[in-house]
Amino acid sequence: MAVESELDVQLIAATQFTLPTGVDWAADETATDAEALVEFAGRACYETWEKPNPHTRANDAYLRHIIDVGHDALLEHATATLYIRGLSRSAGNELLRHRHFSFSQLSQRYVHSGAGEVVVPDAIAEDEDLRRLFLRAVDDARFVHDELLAALEENMAAESNALLRAKKARQAARAILPNATETRFVVTGNYRTWRAFIAARASEHADTEIRALAIRCLEILREQSPVLFSDFLVSELADGSKMATTPYLS
Amino acid sequence: MAVESELDVQLIAATQFTLPTGVDWAADETATDAEALVEFAGRACYETWEKPNPHTRANDAYLRHIIDVGHDALLEHATATLYIRGLSRSAGNELLRHRHFSFSQLSQRYVHSGAGEVVVPDAIAEDEDLRRLFLRAVDDARFVHDELLAALEENMAAESNALLRAKKARQAARAILPNATETRFVVTGNYRTWRAFIAARASEHADTEIRALAIRCLEILREQSPVLFSDFLVSELADGSKMATTPYLS
Amino acid sequence: MAVESELDVQLIAATQFTLPTGVDWAADETATDAEALVEFAGRACYETWEKPNPHTRANDAYLRHIIDVGHDALLEHATATLYIRGLSRSAGNELLRHRHFSFSQLSQRYVHSGAGEVVVPDAIAEDEDLRRLFLRAVDDARFVHDELLAALEENMAAESNALLRAKKARQAARAILPNATETRFVVTGNYRTWRAFIAARASEHADTEIRALAIRCLEILREQSPVLFSDFLVSELADGSKMATTPYLS
Amino acid sequence: MAVESELDVQLIAATQFTLPTGVDWAADETATDAEALVEFAGRACYETWEKPNPHTRANDAYLRHIIDVGHDALLEHATATLYIRGLSRSAGNELLRHRHFSFSQLSQRYVHSGAGEVVVPDAIAEDEDLRRLFLRAVDDARFVHDELLAALEENMAAESNALLRAKKARQAARAILPNATETRFVVTGNYRTWRAFIAARASEHADTEIRALAIRCLEILREQSPVLFSDFLVSELADGSKMATTPYLS
Repeated sequence: MAVESELDVQLIAATQFTLPTGVDWAADETATDAEALVEFAGRACYETWEKPNPHTRANDAYLRHIIDVGHDALLEHATATLYIRGLSRSAGNELLRHRHFSFSQLSQRYVHSGAGEVVVPDAIAEDEDLRRLFLRAVDDARFVHDELLAALEENMAAESNALLRAKKARQAARAILPNATETRFVVTGNYRTWRAFIAARASEHADTEIRALAIRCLEILREQSPVLFSDFLVSELADGSKMATTPYLS
Repeated sequence: MAVESELDVQLIAATQFTLPTGVDWAADETATDAEALVEFAGRACYETWEKPNPHTRANDAYLRHIIDVGHDALLEHATATLYIRGLSRSAGNELLRHRHFSFSQLSQRYVHSGAGEVVVPDAIAEDEDLRRLFLRAVDDARFVHDELLAALEENMAAESNALLRAKKARQAARAILPNATETRFVVTGNYRTWRAFIAARASEHADTEIRALAIRCLEILREQSPVLFSDFLVSELADGSKMATTPYLS
Repeated sequence: MAVESELDVQLIAATQFTLPTGVDWAADETATDAEALVEFAGRACYETWEKPNPHTRANDAYLRHIIDVGHDALLEHATATLYIRGLSRSAGNELLRHRHFSFSQLSQRYVHSGAGEVVVPDAIAEDEDLRRLFLRAVDDARFVHDELLAALEENMAAESNALLRAKKARQAARAILPNATETRFVVTGNYRTWRAFIAARASEHADTEIRALAIRCLEILREQSPVLFSDFLVSELADGSKMATTPYLS
Repeated sequence: MAVESELDVQLIAATQFTLPTGVDWAADETATDAEALVEFAGRACYETWEKPNPHTRANDAYLRHIIDVGHDALLEHATATLYIRGLSRSAGNELLRHRHFSFSQLSQRYVHSGAGEVVVPDAIAEDEDLRRLFLRAVDDARFVHDELLAALEENMAAESNALLRAKKARQAARAILPNATETRFVVTGNYRTWRAFIAARASEHADTEIRALAIRCLEILREQSPVLFSDFLVSELADGSKMATTPYLS
């Protein structure tokens, strides 16, 4: 029986900053590691270690100024890695378009998706009849998948390497699995890339599922750096789901 | 009834070379546009317009030397665009991992996949029983897809924008469509990227379907530049399918 | 005696488009190769071959719409290669920051910059006294460069490989050569990258020299595709030099 | 009087790893943050949390296997940021070619290079006569630079904005500054990029100065992850300088 999978996103790695010797500067105590690093990189371009401009003396004011004037290259120094589970293969396909990220994706060729986790689209999950229709269709597809798998392994009996045989059977049989099948990712990106991803996918026009992912990423990254994502405005749509926009990225 | 789709790859754009004024050099007449451009870029780095080295005087010798010493950056000046049809969504997912390409992919959110083209994996197509089982399962999935689509559009009657309603219904309903569903791509890449793609995916260890795509790309690009792909050795596997390798890329 | 070098930019390669078989569509006759390819890629995403929308039926209207809604990924399919001479090393350093380009640069380690071409900044060239002061200083630096080169080759007499000895001497001696020393590039980029480069460097705030380069690139690329660069507005600054901006890229 | 600048490289940021909840796995205690993260990403692709393969059960064995089979994409999850001072502008130009890095470079247009730091090439520094000749030529160039700067600011008196005037004068006057002028960088890269940089620039054929930089980066990164750089073999050349190679990257 198909198992319904929920989106689960966790931060598993982030940038830690250490001040070098020989530079007479320190970040504000309120600044997170990412925020201190970005300010450091900005000041290194102009050697303004003594914070000569009173308007940008504070870390948050400096970072807001960077975003305001579009020095986005500075945001590339801070990175964050998220572990994403409970995403459908079709949303995963959209995520992969963001090529500045580094991805490690759960392999459908190697891992037997036996437990049968699927991501049910909200519009279907909300309607009990459609939900049942959908899950039954998933079960049917998985039943055929398992039949194909067994028959293919038998057909390939001539292949003596059991591991290779299983892999070849799996990569053919998976052709019947639905878009809704769960996939998982380790995704690493710098803050410029995360901001671009969120701006593109938290928009009202994005697919519901990837929009929910973008909103979740924004929430997590804001804990890492409240200031560097402070320009995003989160609001609620008529259907109760969330969207986010920033005036700086369209 | 599901329609079986065949891989179809065509070259739709390629680099055309024009010699600038003020440079006392000309490519060999045998050189294609891509080959002349790559030699030009190489000679521009060292201003060896007069072809001082007799061993690399000929265009093909010059290019083989470039590949041999690993000056792969020169191969980035020549580009080619292929139009790919008859690829499954799962193979498309693998293709998208090659992020140095530029992609335009057929949208599953906007285009109603009514005709129902699917790519049947070779291992399934070869066994008439499995083929029938597979196609029937595809038809079942498509039947549920159409039911979901109709019901979702009805559920969303409150959404007055018909276009938006159709799109929202489509992006939920597509969740039941199988991996085998056909997708299409316009793919642009420079020769360095095409070579890396072919080396990675024409290998014995690659999935059958993307391996067939890589071999097809190699055949087409060799017409554009016999020399710049001359190091790839194509051979036949036990199952009659093809693979290709080059000693220069692993 | 130092030779003053002038900026020289020429198109040496560009995308040529061929319509694939099996697609019932043709571009307007007015469309250039780049323009036809970008429209083709856009229509391939939605399979709108029959041009259903009367407002975007014409090639130029379609492309303006793409730029207007920000489907910039489509602009990655068309590429152009420029051969740039008469650029200073310092402007070259700025050009290299645009990492989406592919570069082949004249090697200062391999090529003896004997003729002594330099790029004199406009602000210096305009004042005859400063121009003379500058060129004399360049000559002095080149004189020391030649002295260093000779002495270093002598010091390295133990190195029996004459080519290697010359290279090692050259890479040390060049340390005294000024920023103004001429460099040359073969640069390949897709239209999205060229547009981003021009938007960043044709701006009023850019360095004079790279701004002049950006304006020259814009003029040349407009011949390749009047429509895909039609949003750039060129104007004249108080000093008579040109700048360009587009509302679509900041 | 010109000040001789020494290469100074410091680690200022690196990846910190946190295990997510819901995964029954832990890295070996010996593993550094980068090493634990890379193993995690690898196991996430195959869900081999229970370490089924005894040969790759230990973190270091797992990572060596990754490098051995070429799963380099996993190395993109760990990043490190170095602050580099005491590099010449010409070596900086070479560094900029490694476009997968993110760079923040000291601005020659904004920062008055008054103190006059220069990087003296080893081959010149070793010969007292050449060293003196070189430093005197640097002083001459800087003298002309200061003359040009003063005269240009005077010529631009019509420009009422003092900051803009200074910038315009500076960007013209810097044309006479030598390649040897010191530059500084904040450089962020993932381990795949750092490995490619070191493999390319620690080679015997690289320029002396950037080779020394590559060796220094290798030493620092090995402290972050002994295993992920363990395949590099460091050796000494006839002139006493160091080089490094790995069988995995050419």
